[in-house]
Amino acid sequence: MNRDVVTSKQITVFKDDHRTPMDDVVVLEIPLTIYLNGEELITLLCTPQKLDRLTLGFLRSEGLLQSCDQVKTLRVDEERGLVEVELAGGKGLAEKLYGKRTITSGCGKGTMFYSALDTLRSNPVNSEVKFDRRQIWSLMRLMHKHSALYRATGGVHGAALVDHQRVLFFFEDIGRHNAVDKIVGECLIGGISLEDKALITTGRLSSEILLKSAKLSLPVLISRSAPTSLTVELAEQLNITVIGFARGLRMCVYTHPWRVL
Amino acid sequence: MNRDVVTSKQITVFKDDHRTPMDDVVVLEIPLTIYLNGEELITLLCTPQKLDRLTLGFLRSEGLLQSCDQVKTLRVDEERGLVEVELAGGKGLAEKLYGKRTITSGCGKGTMFYSALDTLRSNPVNSEVKFDRRQIWSLMRLMHKHSALYRATGGVHGAALVDHQRVLFFFEDIGRHNAVDKIVGECLIGGISLEDKALITTGRLSSEILLKSAKLSLPVLISRSAPTSLTVELAEQLNITVIGFARGLRMCVYTHPWRVL
Repeated sequence: MNRDVVTSKQITVFKDDHRTPMDDVVVLEIPLTIYLNGEELITLLCTPQKLDRLTLGFLRSEGLLQSCDQVKTLRVDEERGLVEVELAGGKGLAEKLYGKRTITSGCGKGTMFYSALDTLRSNPVNSEVKFDRRQIWSLMRLMHKHSALYRATGGVHGAALVDHQRVLFFFEDIGRHNAVDKIVGECLIGGISLEDKALITTGRLSSEILLKSAKLSLPVLISRSAPTSLTVELAEQLNITVIGFARGLRMCVYTHPWRVL
Repeated sequence: MNRDVVTSKQITVFKDDHRTPMDDVVVLEIPLTIYLNGEELITLLCTPQKLDRLTLGFLRSEGLLQSCDQVKTLRVDEERGLVEVELAGGKGLAEKLYGKRTITSGCGKGTMFYSALDTLRSNPVNSEVKFDRRQIWSLMRLMHKHSALYRATGGVHGAALVDHQRVLFFFEDIGRHNAVDKIVGECLIGGISLEDKALITTGRLSSEILLKSAKLSLPVLISRSAPTSLTVELAEQLNITVIGFARGLRMCVYTHPWRVL
């Protein structure tokens, strides 16, 4: 575990009739302000790790960026909690989009522009990839092995991109949206196609997480927690397999179960 | 449990070598667009329950509203997923504030304006209220008894306002920020002072939850989960007692432990 993402605090532990002073490890939370083409866009609250991935992934999820070719410069100043991005397309891009004010707030972390259009723009996912149920359970176990920050602090969500055998990347963040955006950013940088992969998250599957995945044509979304009604409805339409409560040797498949063998 | 906040879905359950079709209960998620003085302000994704409380609490947490006297009209149209609020103060209020674009995205649900000023505006909490550790454990158990929606769906966070003996209100929502904002709204409507009370949440304690509480002069913030570094630092400065991992007969007190007996 990276020591730069936690801090030590003196705490008091109460256990039944005992009161004990202790040193505890707390996950770092910092405000990260994104400047896009010289204008302040948004301040995210996040764990200071992979901030370049987070920024690119956030911009991609918000529809402000399609590929890394558009990025002229990206400079992270972790000390001052800011990141400056210059995109081809000139000034006024953010203003044009943020001017609409159809911002939704992320359940987990992250805001995104939400409109019926988002769904339409995300074409249904065509991938015919299938996962064996035993692969999924084994990948869940593998992911938990990676969760060093969670085990140390209990204060983060994790997200992993997996293929049939391996955990390709795994990121943790105080916000479950941020963790997914870090995956999105990593894929953008590596030019990685998601059409034969699955995304595992420890967090609840709200509609915004589903839409982030749909924009990347990801066919399978897995969580150890629950989906919402809107997630299930959108996944039905967008041909995405949504799996919840994947724990031990059990899982609930909410949509398109033909992708699970 | 209110039947209007869940929906039934046909799912496929995989358990070891068995595959079984089942009916499952999924928590409802709807987009709720808030119009403030005739202008679209924001779209929240939320559980359709106590939407008037959610709206008022959100506006209060964002600093757009101080008391219910300012509310000229509030009309919730659940069918269309919108709420129209007219506040004394005229047009341009939202624009003036949202024009700043120092928006942070909520880890959990909800965005809020974030700046160093927020901390300064929230004066340190003076309350000398104290809670016996056994009261806290007993209130945690009481809160869990109220969590009908969580038990049915596994997809929501809960927030409760408590005094020394009782759970005064308890709300659940797909977003942990929304659940807290519903409490804030209820207190605003009832003219309830928080200076001798505690707020319990099932979610992680990120800085935005702490700042929401600080704005209401709440002295004690309790979670069954973890706080972040920023929460602990702000709570230290603002004289708020932050308690994490309150489960069974154990809890970790991160700041101002003199309020726990």
